[in-house]
Amino acid sequence: MTGSELLTGAVRDANGPWVARELGELGFEVARIEIVGDRPADLVAALEHVAEFDLVVTSGGLGPTADDLTTEIVAGYVGAPLELDETMQALIHRRVARWAERTGFAGPALDEATRKQAMVPRGAVALEPVGTAPGLVVRKPAGPLVVVLPGPPRELQGMWPAVLAAPPVVELLATVPRAEPRSLRFFGLPESEIAQTLREMERARDLSAVEVTTCLRRSELEVDLHPLPGAEELAAEIADEIVSRHRKNLISAFGTTTDELLAAALVEHGLTVATGESCTGGMVAARLVDRAGSSAYVNGGVVAYSNEAKTALLGVPAEMIAEHGAVSPEVARALADGARERFGASIGVGVTGVAGPGGGTEAKPVGYVCFCVTTADGLVITRDPVLPGSRGDIRERSTDLAMHLLLRAAGGLPR
Amino acid sequence: MTGSELLTGAVRDANGPWVARELGELGFEVARIEIVGDRPADLVAALEHVAEFDLVVTSGGLGPTADDLTTEIVAGYVGAPLELDETMQALIHRRVARWAERTGFAGPALDEATRKQAMVPRGAVALEPVGTAPGLVVRKPAGPLVVVLPGPPRELQGMWPAVLAAPPVVELLATVPRAEPRSLRFFGLPESEIAQTLREMERARDLSAVEVTTCLRRSELEVDLHPLPGAEELAAEIADEIVSRHRKNLISAFGTTTDELLAAALVEHGLTVATGESCTGGMVAARLVDRAGSSAYVNGGVVAYSNEAKTALLGVPAEMIAEHGAVSPEVARALADGARERFGASIGVGVTGVAGPGGGTEAKPVGYVCFCVTTADGLVITRDPVLPGSRGDIRERSTDLAMHLLLRAAGGLPR
Repeated sequence: MTGSELLTGAVRDANGPWVARELGELGFEVARIEIVGDRPADLVAALEHVAEFDLVVTSGGLGPTADDLTTEIVAGYVGAPLELDETMQALIHRRVARWAERTGFAGPALDEATRKQAMVPRGAVALEPVGTAPGLVVRKPAGPLVVVLPGPPRELQGMWPAVLAAPPVVELLATVPRAEPRSLRFFGLPESEIAQTLREMERARDLSAVEVTTCLRRSELEVDLHPLPGAEELAAEIADEIVSRHRKNLISAFGTTTDELLAAALVEHGLTVATGESCTGGMVAARLVDRAGSSAYVNGGVVAYSNEAKTALLGVPAEMIAEHGAVSPEVARALADGARERFGASIGVGVTGVAGPGGGTEAKPVGYVCFCVTTADGLVITRDPVLPGSRGDIRERSTDLAMHLLLRAAGGLPR
Repeated sequence: MTGSELLTGAVRDANGPWVARELGELGFEVARIEIVGDRPADLVAALEHVAEFDLVVTSGGLGPTADDLTTEIVAGYVGAPLELDETMQALIHRRVARWAERTGFAGPALDEATRKQAMVPRGAVALEPVGTAPGLVVRKPAGPLVVVLPGPPRELQGMWPAVLAAPPVVELLATVPRAEPRSLRFFGLPESEIAQTLREMERARDLSAVEVTTCLRRSELEVDLHPLPGAEELAAEIADEIVSRHRKNLISAFGTTTDELLAAALVEHGLTVATGESCTGGMVAARLVDRAGSSAYVNGGVVAYSNEAKTALLGVPAEMIAEHGAVSPEVARALADGARERFGASIGVGVTGVAGPGGGTEAKPVGYVCFCVTTADGLVITRDPVLPGSRGDIRERSTDLAMHLLLRAAGGLPR
């Protein structure tokens, strides 16, 4: 990854994780993600650090500005001169022509930018741009295969099929062994419990052919088992043992996420959802709508941030707010019921809490959040934890917990 | 950064950008962010790559499980034996005791985990844990200062003040020159225009003491100027020149974000906002509520995902939907007006579009999104672009554009 903006913290790298997952699924072992600035010495050093690998994927630094240096540096690294690819130049020109005319940005600045983006190291496979920057596939003699991709995630991901179809990549892929990783997902389970389970299993047999990693993702614990080639069966046995010991905390034995399980459960049982949110301010609704096809089961929601809105739009009695406070289990329930009824949904979820940083009291500190999920057939699930962290953390954890309670109400958890 | 989960693509690294920004603001030049798996050889290689730097910050790998190796590897790297810190052990024990009793997880597994997390390299400064993992500050003889932090962002960020107060860090900070970067923000401006402006300026004078980077962030272009020490004035002059040439596309001459400007404009003019969202499903409301203090100007919103909800909750006439379609400038306007009126707000925003992947037609393809912002005093701003990208991209760009139009309506753009 290149891009000085990634080192100022202004932008979070989306490409590293995406490419890593794709490569992992193809059977590659991903050793490292490295983010460096657009400075020649740093780019060269980054390529030298990866000389021993089979494949290097770069992203970014293909733009038209002088700080975009990747193509030039890679050409130097593989020892091939840069040449103007006129077909590419014409193609990029056609791409931008209409936009340039319309906006009045046509002219020498744009022509210069087009020419820069059409320079290709001799011998490289050039990949058709998704935006205006072509990708490259080029081998360093006696070194790694280098795949050069643009930085905008949409362009990088759009170019990926062309990467996999490029002859040098096809050739490399033929040499990669496939071993499927296995993922388990738990809620409310500390990492130390998994460590203990593994220690006990290790007394009986050697588990070293399976790499087990645990990762606490806010409210959920993900356990990933990466078998060495041939150890798939051992990985499956370890997974089964972990699942059987911690079944009551299990979300999924096959890595399925809460969101996927919830969508499947809602569709399977023909259920619909409506939201009544205060502190999460639309995050639960947005998370539900994230998935394609969500119109089949999301009726809608109300962000009732002010007390007046809670009363006017979701029928929360003003006296209830006066008596118990806007952040109370009573109001959470009224939000859930109100949303369910107003939107004619089968399940309603209400969330109201103190996200902070101000507004906390001794009885209701920052992080105190009340949840309620109610269904048309009378099920009521409530929670009112004090969640840790910043305003952002509290709102994200609240969204997670709301999704988890919805999953429970929709009957989507394993028995 | 360590954590094999970051290399499977399951988790996106939040700590690298956060630490990079903090260090940048302290005056450090951040050369590299590196993400490696929890494998001993990879961890050792990562530390060897940074031997020439002054400061190395690691995050992650401090958990209680056997795959968490950072402390052990760092101890080896700096050449100091690991010792049990009994004060730390007691402190961690107290932290987890109540939770462990309540959940029934107390016992040898947890004691083992506590002991592992309390091991500290001799001579290191141990930092009090925010969760259960202490941080470390330790110097490699004739090598970099190494700061070892936990992986969960909440813990890492919570420990940061203690890092800055640790004597070896204080000593290092005293040697770092401060040079403030300058950020500009534009909308609808291609990178090639900035490149052209810089080329023209370079003909008249040497700009090499200022590193200029451009970064296209969906709808916005950020231009960052990083002066070498002493070149602050030159950076200011370049910034002024860029601003004066591209003023009509300017959002902010001082790096302020659209969200910050919008919040300030709403507060300054005593305005309130309500949202009526379809395809963005609550993302605009959630983005508004992101900011602390947003209850002063966010009245609420409706996620009207179904046609029935649009009519029942926001008064969009069913005949209008039948005649023009749910995705139409007319319905966007009705959503904005309905939200504004139902929530008694001074500004309403309506968003309805085809987020895909299905549902597109020739007249209204995937990415076609209708926006409308209306105010109580009669201002109406409309847009109906076709936005590129995936479902997620389209929804994010839509949220960006909605925020931008709100900013325009709130009078928060520079003149």
